[in-house]
Amino acid sequence: MQNPSIVLYGPGKAKLEDKPVPDILDGHDVIVRIAFVGVCGSDVHFWRHGGIGEHHADPVAGIVMGHEAAGTISSIGPSVTRVKPGDRVAIEPGVPCRYCRACKSGSYHFCKDMRFAAAPGPPDTQGTLCKYFKVAEDFVYKIPQTLSLEEAVLVEPTSVGVHAVKLGDVRPGETVVVMGSGTIGLLCAAVAKVYGAHRVILVDILDRKLEFAREFLHCGTFKPDTSASAEQNAAGLLKDLGLDEVDTVIEASGAASSTETGIYILRPGGKFVQTGMGRPKIEFPIGAMSEKELMVRGCFRYRSGDYELAVSLLSKGMIDVKPLMSSMTPFEDATAAWEKTAKGEGIKNLIRGAQD
Amino acid sequence: MQNPSIVLYGPGKAKLEDKPVPDILDGHDVIVRIAFVGVCGSDVHFWRHGGIGEHHADPVAGIVMGHEAAGTISSIGPSVTRVKPGDRVAIEPGVPCRYCRACKSGSYHFCKDMRFAAAPGPPDTQGTLCKYFKVAEDFVYKIPQTLSLEEAVLVEPTSVGVHAVKLGDVRPGETVVVMGSGTIGLLCAAVAKVYGAHRVILVDILDRKLEFAREFLHCGTFKPDTSASAEQNAAGLLKDLGLDEVDTVIEASGAASSTETGIYILRPGGKFVQTGMGRPKIEFPIGAMSEKELMVRGCFRYRSGDYELAVSLLSKGMIDVKPLMSSMTPFEDATAAWEKTAKGEGIKNLIRGAQD
Amino acid sequence: MQNPSIVLYGPGKAKLEDKPVPDILDGHDVIVRIAFVGVCGSDVHFWRHGGIGEHHADPVAGIVMGHEAAGTISSIGPSVTRVKPGDRVAIEPGVPCRYCRACKSGSYHFCKDMRFAAAPGPPDTQGTLCKYFKVAEDFVYKIPQTLSLEEAVLVEPTSVGVHAVKLGDVRPGETVVVMGSGTIGLLCAAVAKVYGAHRVILVDILDRKLEFAREFLHCGTFKPDTSASAEQNAAGLLKDLGLDEVDTVIEASGAASSTETGIYILRPGGKFVQTGMGRPKIEFPIGAMSEKELMVRGCFRYRSGDYELAVSLLSKGMIDVKPLMSSMTPFEDATAAWEKTAKGEGIKNLIRGAQD
Amino acid sequence: MQNPSIVLYGPGKAKLEDKPVPDILDGHDVIVRIAFVGVCGSDVHFWRHGGIGEHHADPVAGIVMGHEAAGTISSIGPSVTRVKPGDRVAIEPGVPCRYCRACKSGSYHFCKDMRFAAAPGPPDTQGTLCKYFKVAEDFVYKIPQTLSLEEAVLVEPTSVGVHAVKLGDVRPGETVVVMGSGTIGLLCAAVAKVYGAHRVILVDILDRKLEFAREFLHCGTFKPDTSASAEQNAAGLLKDLGLDEVDTVIEASGAASSTETGIYILRPGGKFVQTGMGRPKIEFPIGAMSEKELMVRGCFRYRSGDYELAVSLLSKGMIDVKPLMSSMTPFEDATAAWEKTAKGEGIKNLIRGAQD
Repeated sequence: MQNPSIVLYGPGKAKLEDKPVPDILDGHDVIVRIAFVGVCGSDVHFWRHGGIGEHHADPVAGIVMGHEAAGTISSIGPSVTRVKPGDRVAIEPGVPCRYCRACKSGSYHFCKDMRFAAAPGPPDTQGTLCKYFKVAEDFVYKIPQTLSLEEAVLVEPTSVGVHAVKLGDVRPGETVVVMGSGTIGLLCAAVAKVYGAHRVILVDILDRKLEFAREFLHCGTFKPDTSASAEQNAAGLLKDLGLDEVDTVIEASGAASSTETGIYILRPGGKFVQTGMGRPKIEFPIGAMSEKELMVRGCFRYRSGDYELAVSLLSKGMIDVKPLMSSMTPFEDATAAWEKTAKGEGIKNLIRGAQD
Repeated sequence: MQNPSIVLYGPGKAKLEDKPVPDILDGHDVIVRIAFVGVCGSDVHFWRHGGIGEHHADPVAGIVMGHEAAGTISSIGPSVTRVKPGDRVAIEPGVPCRYCRACKSGSYHFCKDMRFAAAPGPPDTQGTLCKYFKVAEDFVYKIPQTLSLEEAVLVEPTSVGVHAVKLGDVRPGETVVVMGSGTIGLLCAAVAKVYGAHRVILVDILDRKLEFAREFLHCGTFKPDTSASAEQNAAGLLKDLGLDEVDTVIEASGAASSTETGIYILRPGGKFVQTGMGRPKIEFPIGAMSEKELMVRGCFRYRSGDYELAVSLLSKGMIDVKPLMSSMTPFEDATAAWEKTAKGEGIKNLIRGAQD
Repeated sequence: MQNPSIVLYGPGKAKLEDKPVPDILDGHDVIVRIAFVGVCGSDVHFWRHGGIGEHHADPVAGIVMGHEAAGTISSIGPSVTRVKPGDRVAIEPGVPCRYCRACKSGSYHFCKDMRFAAAPGPPDTQGTLCKYFKVAEDFVYKIPQTLSLEEAVLVEPTSVGVHAVKLGDVRPGETVVVMGSGTIGLLCAAVAKVYGAHRVILVDILDRKLEFAREFLHCGTFKPDTSASAEQNAAGLLKDLGLDEVDTVIEASGAASSTETGIYILRPGGKFVQTGMGRPKIEFPIGAMSEKELMVRGCFRYRSGDYELAVSLLSKGMIDVKPLMSSMTPFEDATAAWEKTAKGEGIKNLIRGAQD
Repeated sequence: MQNPSIVLYGPGKAKLEDKPVPDILDGHDVIVRIAFVGVCGSDVHFWRHGGIGEHHADPVAGIVMGHEAAGTISSIGPSVTRVKPGDRVAIEPGVPCRYCRACKSGSYHFCKDMRFAAAPGPPDTQGTLCKYFKVAEDFVYKIPQTLSLEEAVLVEPTSVGVHAVKLGDVRPGETVVVMGSGTIGLLCAAVAKVYGAHRVILVDILDRKLEFAREFLHCGTFKPDTSASAEQNAAGLLKDLGLDEVDTVIEASGAASSTETGIYILRPGGKFVQTGMGRPKIEFPIGAMSEKELMVRGCFRYRSGDYELAVSLLSKGMIDVKPLMSSMTPFEDATAAWEKTAKGEGIKNLIRGAQD
């Protein structure tokens, strides 16, 4: 096969098939030979439901899956100056138009013409679960020899954490509570520590996840009582951990009860970042938000500067993502990696790139 | 009577009674002879329900009502240097402790020992519906001869607008939509124009309020269809007014549907400020907030710098509040002014201070 | 001639000559038929000295002059969607690379591969003093019928003012002093008013400039005593104008004494923006800067969002630039417009675009 | 003696003499039994020159020296709730008025009625080189048992570093260069690391100071060539350390050449903080500041939140100040500690509080 790719056609319908190797049409494009791809919760959602929200795989054209990936530059366009064939790179999976107001103001994640891997967009927008992936030269990031290509896959979720912590304006000395102890929650917490948070608390309903969090981050943890109200869990959390004030909450579970509990534990003037995606509408304690004059932020992907910092944090060993890597699945068994993730097995499950 | 005061003891129970003239115990305190008091929606809520949320008038001790007021300095403590007897002043009705972290960092509105006129607090915290009111010298603001004491009462709601517009970080060139066309909504819109908003839209369900808004502010208006969904009203608003993008929404009605519509009309990266108080929990479109990475802010009273700017805007004629003043009620008929406001009559109803 | 252009080869050496009409190589480029070009202080510096700082016109290749311009789209590349032939546009004269970190973070004015009209850069970087000028589609801005193409030339210096006022973080209620009453100083002051400055003071050593400023802006003015020290002038300014506090100073004269006076008049925590270019090193009161903890900012051209706002301010009549337009010179006499400006005649002298 | 104190009357004129134990007049005041006092460069300046700038010790009244101190609460006023006798505390040496606009906006370091230990002010403003020192309850900070009172003296210079790093808006990933490797320079660098700086460089002209810096901070160092120009040293620094970009420079030496070199090494948009005090006017490269659009900040003492964070950083061991403590001098030999510091011996020389 020229360019073996994992293509999704609908819920539970995926095929390994050959695709043409992409042509370099724009002089600034590069082709990356994919080494590893990570499995994300959204992949699982696509696998189970055929899509997310209004975005669904076309049952005829299908969609090449995958958006967390690292690999080696195999060829470059004539205008490329930033990388050369053979460079090992982490891939930022969305390339914006560069011409709209969002792009020109540094908020390219708001670009309406964004081509994001495996997300709906122009027909030639494909995912990273293939052998050869085309992307612009400034959306790949060289990694040092000290960082493995497996670890480089984790640059993507680390960037999500960087973005969330920046939006939460976490400052040295703060107490930060992260709701949800999956990959994103753990990395938000790890980044919050880099930003100087003096105390970080992870919240989850699964003991083994909290245990992992304590070992990974040397942080405090709290397990909410699922039969109690959000008010009660908020009071319990503050009491159990001896906290007067929580400065920032990062919601990374998508559960409505977590959002509510998070709002209740914040100090006046505190900050709340919603990274988790769950139901489109929830019961929200707007009165508490008003009285405490909270800042509540949506959080969408990553923007200018986030990938650079994430690469740097991993490269300098300020965040060690090796403990997060749970399993490795061969390319042709990609759906098995999705299934594993769907069952809650592992933290970050990886898929090996297609072999020759 | 020495210090005639309007005291509330419960729902619908208010009495005009005499209180002692307050003693100056702190050298920085001043006594203000109250000239005029404004009626606010929260006064009406107290009048009807005996309180708001968890804050209720003590049925035995009662509470002196009123928190929007202006008057003349009648006496000053020995350390006072900022004002002198005879000075005409607008009164900021909450005096914080000055010692806690909130006070020292400029966020004195978060002070837990705040004494706020007519709000629950230490037993000697009283409202402004009296003849002689005690307050600290730095919480009264001298007004120029060009500003009447009636207008100076409106400094309080103007400060609410200043605070909301600051939290919304309104910038020159923006399109700002204000939900709710009462006193606060109108003043938020007026302040947004001072902050350079190029386009301001007022939203209300009453035609006469929208008509008033158009005349007062030369702004656009929109009347939502109360039988339509928030999505439909959002689409209708954008279409009717020919708007591509809304940069900032200020919610000043307290209606849950307004919050929802406000979220839907914002551009990616847009800003939402909730000043209206309604139900403590509402159905909230958190998915739209996340995908558009909105900044949503609670908004509580006013803080350092807000009163100064509000006084300046009125003094320099940059906002003319005279059209907002709807009626004048004698002191002893204060409850009639509350009733009038409860019925939706007028914009800002005033009560004349106690006469000799 | 195909593309008549004014080319500078060294001090006092300029020629009207024919150049080829530029080819559209990038699909996003457009060709603008230039209607009017403004004369700027830097043009005069080039005309007199052959360049500025390390940037000099090549004596053999020459340089097409001009960077303030407006015109009509004459043709467009195949990917262009934002404008069409016949559109009347203001031109932003610098197009960045779009791939570097500066470009991607919204600070494209720091792009090292910027192609700026009439500034040194790649050999095909040309100025706007020609008949047909090539630029990217997102660096032209459509103007409404209510704005003339002559006025649209002033979008460029207005953008300089927008950029300076943004860097100075001017807020409603502030007192702003602008040093230097040329085009840039006047427009900085006008923009500061849009940003809500309550009091604006223009400083200049020429009475006629101050007189113009008073008429144009209804602002305060101050004429420094050139035989007095900066400390004395600072004290004089504050006293004459009855100012307690100056919040922001914008230096737009390039005179070292103005910078020094500006630092002395600021309040603790005040802000200073240096837009004027003069000697590379000056005696600077760093002690006063430290003790008052001032924020002092360099200011370079304009960046993302500045042109958009400048176009909007002129289009909506919030700034009327017509009084600034002093003279109109035919294309072939361009050097006469430079001479006029060199002599200090007029505020903004314009050059009419080449006729057929 | 009741309250043995070290009083300065002019250059080289200091006496150990008895002073009355201060009375608690304000209910929020506390008396601290001083345990240790640090020697600062400004003490040395007072000792040699009788004062600094316009601030001089009165030759008749004298001034009690000292402003870096820690001790134990010995008595408290009737309104004090935050500490109790016996509490071990770090002392913030300046108490503001609490009533002015600066105080109320969180910028109390700009208060014109500040009473700062050993600095000119109201006649009863005294320094900490005494046995019993009076201060407000909210300007002492309890320290945990894990922190010694000697170390707590270093909270003061750490707060200077916190303030400088905040003003420099240092962010994770940055490269930060600190000019000057004295106590302040070292602590600015240590705080910059807490704020996530990936690379920190200390610059000094003394080898032994650079050696100490490398051991204390595991940072890069650079020794400028005092016979070279600032441009040459800037180029040398960037080359020797292999730096492309410097994001932030903190000047902590007071040397004019350091300021100049610091400006030259910054990237476009870079940030410069001047903490060092030297000559009031210097030759300053304003052209480079303008072209690179630098943000240059004065830096004055510390403000709201700085002491809290400094106490926390030392208490949690995030900064270990023990290596900075060089010597201990008995109270009655205080001038010997000043002399030692004047000769450049040690980093932070301490004076033991008066014994019974």
